Amino acid sequence: MAGDRYAKRRKQLMRKLRAKHAESLLVTNFTNVTYLTGFSGDDSFLIVGRDKTILISDGRYTTQISEECPGLDVYIRPQKEGLVAATAKVARRAKIRNLGFESNSTTVDQAEGLLSALKSTELIPLSGLVEELRLCKDPQEVADLREAVRQAEKGFEVLKATLRGEQTELQVAHDLEHSMRGFGAVGTSFPPIVAVGPHSALPHATPRHVLISDASFVLVDWGANGQTGYKSDLTRVLATGKISSKLEKVYGVVLNAQLAGIQKVRPGVRCCDVDAAARKVIEDAGFGKKFNHGLGHGLGLDIHEGPRLNSATELELRPGMVVTVEPGIYLPGWGGVRIEDDVLVTKDGCEVLTSSPKAFDEIILDF
Amino acid sequence: MAGDRYAKRRKQLMRKLRAKHAESLLVTNFTNVTYLTGFSGDDSFLIVGRDKTILISDGRYTTQISEECPGLDVYIRPQKEGLVAATAKVARRAKIRNLGFESNSTTVDQAEGLLSALKSTELIPLSGLVEELRLCKDPQEVADLREAVRQAEKGFEVLKATLRGEQTELQVAHDLEHSMRGFGAVGTSFPPIVAVGPHSALPHATPRHVLISDASFVLVDWGANGQTGYKSDLTRVLATGKISSKLEKVYGVVLNAQLAGIQKVRPGVRCCDVDAAARKVIEDAGFGKKFNHGLGHGLGLDIHEGPRLNSATELELRPGMVVTVEPGIYLPGWGGVRIEDDVLVTKDGCEVLTSSPKAFDEIILDF
Repeated sequence: MAGDRYAKRRKQLMRKLRAKHAESLLVTNFTNVTYLTGFSGDDSFLIVGRDKTILISDGRYTTQISEECPGLDVYIRPQKEGLVAATAKVARRAKIRNLGFESNSTTVDQAEGLLSALKSTELIPLSGLVEELRLCKDPQEVADLREAVRQAEKGFEVLKATLRGEQTELQVAHDLEHSMRGFGAVGTSFPPIVAVGPHSALPHATPRHVLISDASFVLVDWGANGQTGYKSDLTRVLATGKISSKLEKVYGVVLNAQLAGIQKVRPGVRCCDVDAAARKVIEDAGFGKKFNHGLGHGLGLDIHEGPRLNSATELELRPGMVVTVEPGIYLPGWGGVRIEDDVLVTKDGCEVLTSSPKAFDEIILDF
Repeated sequence: MAGDRYAKRRKQLMRKLRAKHAESLLVTNFTNVTYLTGFSGDDSFLIVGRDKTILISDGRYTTQISEECPGLDVYIRPQKEGLVAATAKVARRAKIRNLGFESNSTTVDQAEGLLSALKSTELIPLSGLVEELRLCKDPQEVADLREAVRQAEKGFEVLKATLRGEQTELQVAHDLEHSMRGFGAVGTSFPPIVAVGPHSALPHATPRHVLISDASFVLVDWGANGQTGYKSDLTRVLATGKISSKLEKVYGVVLNAQLAGIQKVRPGVRCCDVDAAARKVIEDAGFGKKFNHGLGHGLGLDIHEGPRLNSATELELRPGMVVTVEPGIYLPGWGGVRIEDDVLVTKDGCEVLTSSPKAFDEIILDF
């Protein structure tokens, strides 16, 4: 039963709470609330306690909560009662003596509001407990991620089949989103990037009214948001014009860096070492300063979540983690090349969940 | 010049800061950063001070910032330096003695990080200063909102022209998004709601694989996200089958309530009194308990911003404010009716920015 899944997660959370000597936790990060209850709305807090779990929400969600979280205790606050005031009331009624709260998502004003309304409750700032649970995906989550990957890759096949020089970046981005929805996505996991020429050197480029034929290659960074909120994230470059030796060279370096990174992904390896393995290939080729972001990030209900693959993260990979591996080389005035796949850490190595072709001869479109 | 516009806003902010005896403000709400600089990315903080304004960002955005915010001072943090650590470094270098910070968006962890890194700087929690500036839209903002309304309404005309019983809620939602993009929107301002039958009684319904022909009316709540990030928000009900006297009755009550609310919108009137004017019509018709949310909300760069039109808000309306007016009646098991328009407060009354037909005989589709 789906409900058991969420109850199991809350049980795991209680174990972590006990280790922190907290009796209960106020969850203020809406995505964490979803992870612990299955409720897909927002503007709602959750108190997870030993004896009781209570969702604090409002009248817009009454019916939805009864459908998505059968059996869960709910407090629906009246319109005049703010979310923090309602939370304090619920905590007082439940006679909670000490209450952890998510200090990485609770604002200073919210914490002040709780402090002044809960004079006899000890408030304990606790950070990242639910995020730690979310690091390793269970089989159902992996299945949901695979589905989001399928939706994204089917959409990209349509893009490749239909791409024409007289389309604009914006039209291609819109059509890609439409295609992914056709394959079951509820939307994109982020606004897709479709960037030609020098514009592709912006890691977060916004699609423009510029023709695909205005340059000789296009970078596409996209993903699908699946029915259950799990997300995919890929990047491919497509050659759409005369192939320059510079593109072939830069592409080759990025691809080798990406393969070196993926090669390194297995349980027990530190995130920073995966980043370093890929970065070394780019540095050795003389482009070190042109790779100005981390190698990748975890993904799941959030498009960016733990673990982070960058030079600062010493966390060791564990089975069930899912990360992007996405090195890039950005040359202002010329353009950028990035290649990104989604990778699941398995018991004895990794599985690349994405499979859109990426060898250089496979990215050349017959234009 | 666009730059002057942002400089003017920062000047207005400085005036508010002086009244709070603060020398400078750390802006941690990304939308507020956009409002004050024109930078459209995220993950960036802004320090606004008497002598200097500095944007704290990362390498992904270097080029974008130079394009979007020419002349603005920027600190690009290295990958190993977190956003809070970078902010503290910038504040120390600028020798800021007292620094206000947005306590309604800064998390407890971020505030702790600043406190421990800035021993000799006084940190002052300040809430809502930029939000206050954002309450009243300038002529360019109103023009951008009008454009987002146009995109949404053109999309809805396509929806009405193409709607067929064998489409599903999801297909209609996807097509609507696609149409709005065709008219220049960069996307939807929120995931559109397309709900038939009892599902329409959920104020935040998610579109399903359910046929339009499965019920006799459909509720559509949608909006466009314009090029500059300004958003529109509308709701209409369309009759697609046999018209019941219940639908006609409920629709009439909601429409009268909405017109009573709009009638009340003018400078000097309290938000709660606008809510009350609409609510009274629904209460008098015996449906008071079936209208379980506030009457409306401000909209601009955020789909939900100040002022809130609800029973708790005593703020007085001022020219330049733009609010939704959206009463609803929700009858579990039968369905819901909501009618929503976007309304600009003018010098001597209001202007309804939206114009999709809403008289009962105009919402009947020839099916």
